[in-house]
Amino acid sequence: MSISQWTAEKDELIRVSSHFYHKGWMVGTSGNLSVRVAPDTFLITASGRPKGMLGDEDLVSVKGLYELPGPSGNGRKPSAEVSIHQAIYSELREANAVFHIHSVESNIVSEWASDHSVLLPPLEMIKGLGVKDPSLGYRIDVLENHLDVSRIALDLKRLFAQDQVFNEFHLPAFLIRHHGLTVWGNDVLEAFHRIELLEYVFRFMVAMGPSGSTPPMAGFH
Amino acid sequence: MSISQWTAEKDELIRVSSHFYHKGWMVGTSGNLSVRVAPDTFLITASGRPKGMLGDEDLVSVKGLYELPGPSGNGRKPSAEVSIHQAIYSELREANAVFHIHSVESNIVSEWASDHSVLLPPLEMIKGLGVKDPSLGYRIDVLENHLDVSRIALDLKRLFAQDQVFNEFHLPAFLIRHHGLTVWGNDVLEAFHRIELLEYVFRFMVAMGPSGSTPPMAGFH
Amino acid sequence: MSISQWTAEKDELIRVSSHFYHKGWMVGTSGNLSVRVAPDTFLITASGRPKGMLGDEDLVSVKGLYELPGPSGNGRKPSAEVSIHQAIYSELREANAVFHIHSVESNIVSEWASDHSVLLPPLEMIKGLGVKDPSLGYRIDVLENHLDVSRIALDLKRLFAQDQVFNEFHLPAFLIRHHGLTVWGNDVLEAFHRIELLEYVFRFMVAMGPSGSTPPMAGFH
Amino acid sequence: MSISQWTAEKDELIRVSSHFYHKGWMVGTSGNLSVRVAPDTFLITASGRPKGMLGDEDLVSVKGLYELPGPSGNGRKPSAEVSIHQAIYSELREANAVFHIHSVESNIVSEWASDHSVLLPPLEMIKGLGVKDPSLGYRIDVLENHLDVSRIALDLKRLFAQDQVFNEFHLPAFLIRHHGLTVWGNDVLEAFHRIELLEYVFRFMVAMGPSGSTPPMAGFH
Repeated sequence: MSISQWTAEKDELIRVSSHFYHKGWMVGTSGNLSVRVAPDTFLITASGRPKGMLGDEDLVSVKGLYELPGPSGNGRKPSAEVSIHQAIYSELREANAVFHIHSVESNIVSEWASDHSVLLPPLEMIKGLGVKDPSLGYRIDVLENHLDVSRIALDLKRLFAQDQVFNEFHLPAFLIRHHGLTVWGNDVLEAFHRIELLEYVFRFMVAMGPSGSTPPMAGFH
Repeated sequence: MSISQWTAEKDELIRVSSHFYHKGWMVGTSGNLSVRVAPDTFLITASGRPKGMLGDEDLVSVKGLYELPGPSGNGRKPSAEVSIHQAIYSELREANAVFHIHSVESNIVSEWASDHSVLLPPLEMIKGLGVKDPSLGYRIDVLENHLDVSRIALDLKRLFAQDQVFNEFHLPAFLIRHHGLTVWGNDVLEAFHRIELLEYVFRFMVAMGPSGSTPPMAGFH
Repeated sequence: MSISQWTAEKDELIRVSSHFYHKGWMVGTSGNLSVRVAPDTFLITASGRPKGMLGDEDLVSVKGLYELPGPSGNGRKPSAEVSIHQAIYSELREANAVFHIHSVESNIVSEWASDHSVLLPPLEMIKGLGVKDPSLGYRIDVLENHLDVSRIALDLKRLFAQDQVFNEFHLPAFLIRHHGLTVWGNDVLEAFHRIELLEYVFRFMVAMGPSGSTPPMAGFH
Repeated sequence: MSISQWTAEKDELIRVSSHFYHKGWMVGTSGNLSVRVAPDTFLITASGRPKGMLGDEDLVSVKGLYELPGPSGNGRKPSAEVSIHQAIYSELREANAVFHIHSVESNIVSEWASDHSVLLPPLEMIKGLGVKDPSLGYRIDVLENHLDVSRIALDLKRLFAQDQVFNEFHLPAFLIRHHGLTVWGNDVLEAFHRIELLEYVFRFMVAMGPSGSTPPMAGFH
């Protein structure tokens, strides 16, 4: 691999990372972003790098979706959460970009999980996730957090295998308890919009409070 | 129509759209903006375009205020909410710009509707909407949301026909439940200011909470 | 007066106005700023102008601290709240800049007034207002709002005449109920810092809630 | 000392100060930043300077970690909190940068102290502070505020002497009641990230409320 490969994809991730950093969703060195560049290869942010000021060398390529990769040629290590990205790319063909961020709001909402998921409010906005009728009551999955990230990845694969579908629609996103939001999309722009939409929904939920996350559907008063 | 028509109006909407996007009021591809360029013709943002980075080609012209338009010459479709804009332009001569945005705060306030409207607090700020005495108690209408947008447009026309006036003044704005704020103005700047003022009022209301939206008028303590 | 007079002062107010606008404290055309340029003369923002994009011509000069001024040479009218600025400049020699803004937080705090004032929390930050020991318990005055602004100005003059002093220190600021914060300073920078400090204190108070605005002083627990 | 010494360090502190100012953490002239440039010498922000627009001359050097310094050659006085910086540099070899800021959130959290410390929530994010397992329950120290800053510095030295360690890990940070957050790091970037991480945690805590700062650990519901 030449160091000048995938320049456009790297630029795109650097711009997205800077945007999310300035929103407060990737403070310090938190969060990680990736984009698939070949069926079994993706670029991912390196571990421990400040997300507001990434350089080209902070994006490392990972080949293979099943084995934990070593450090890249330039000594950078892929994000510690690389196994979560691998799980998504290996199980979901439609996923070509995976974004994992740590917003305050997503962590608050993750506290409200019951039965390993949280009900989303019936906002028109969630149509942007592919939902037809927001009033039907969609839920986002909440995975348990583990010190060992590969256990989270395993739980995620199990979740995909269950093919648990609410109202015949599976949201392209999940929460990890106390550990932020992960979304995927067909491309970087789609994943970007999904992050924006879900963070909007979480801001609404946090402002409404834990009980408000399930507003009464019946009637207009 | 030449592709280079209405360049100034397009530039203005692109700037407003970018401003609202950065305020968090048009995240992803949500919201839509229009400006009237002839008695029966208006420019409107195209469907599904990212509102933080519109181009000239993302503003499409709609001729006719009563029939749903088809796609524009360049393949862009007008916003799915075009019928709401048509209803306002057809019924209200003074409306030359219509802005529809999705702020978190407007959606929260829409939850608090009773009797299809919400009481606004007596802030000095609401004088900017044309109100003479803010303490008289003005209400903003809240329409029911429907999957079929033309039903919302019909409800809006009915509302205009009722000529329901609070304190002899009808606010140039309404909410759709879970579906954001719509305002109109005599020109783009007036509509822009009205959005700003109402969003200010909604931030106040959300901070005060549902009961605080009707603070005691009587006396100073 | 030459149109090119007081260019530096105008530039300074335009910059401050833009800063406050972007903080959400002067949305639309709300708020007004002034600076004294001679013992009985000051520059003030014109009425009805968008505070995020003022031009030189939007700053008008007012000569005389006791009579309501007419429109300026270029047809601009001084802010409708000009009489409040006149009251401060006429009564307080040390005031050379007066800023009046409409933040959401200041309006919320104004709701909590009892006995025409609100207790400020004992934050280290309020030392920046000239306070020696924040724990002594300082109060900010809250004036009643009136449709007729000259009545507010009269109430303010009465307040200055009473020389009502909390802990031998009068804060260089007051609130008008539902009608924002006003501060003065020896120069533009001092008034600017005082706005920043008080808005910081109000954000703290709003986050703590109405009862939290008077946190228990006694002991550390 | 030449006036052109430590130019890189000064530039770095000026950039950090501007960043924190724009976050609302150093409004007006509040807060102070320092970096160690020799074992017994550090640069620190001068007293009373606006933190959003520092110049080179607003960073003054302090030689000696035990005596209160006088004004610098150019007439600038070191920050009034200089003794706190001295206490950290004299007691902790690993500290080469010390940042003290006044965020609204840190002051709110300081109110919630019991037993002179506050429990941090088990967010994945706090791993960025060097914590291995966030679920173990780490506490941040809260010092009492005193008008005489040297008393705070003395309390801090006592705290270091006690070597009070929660779960065999001492956070590189502490709060002063009503008086902001202080962190240190091995270099400017580490201290910068720690400020970001703790402010993130405080935003979470404030949104959860006083009781939510100790969310139930047991089980997933």
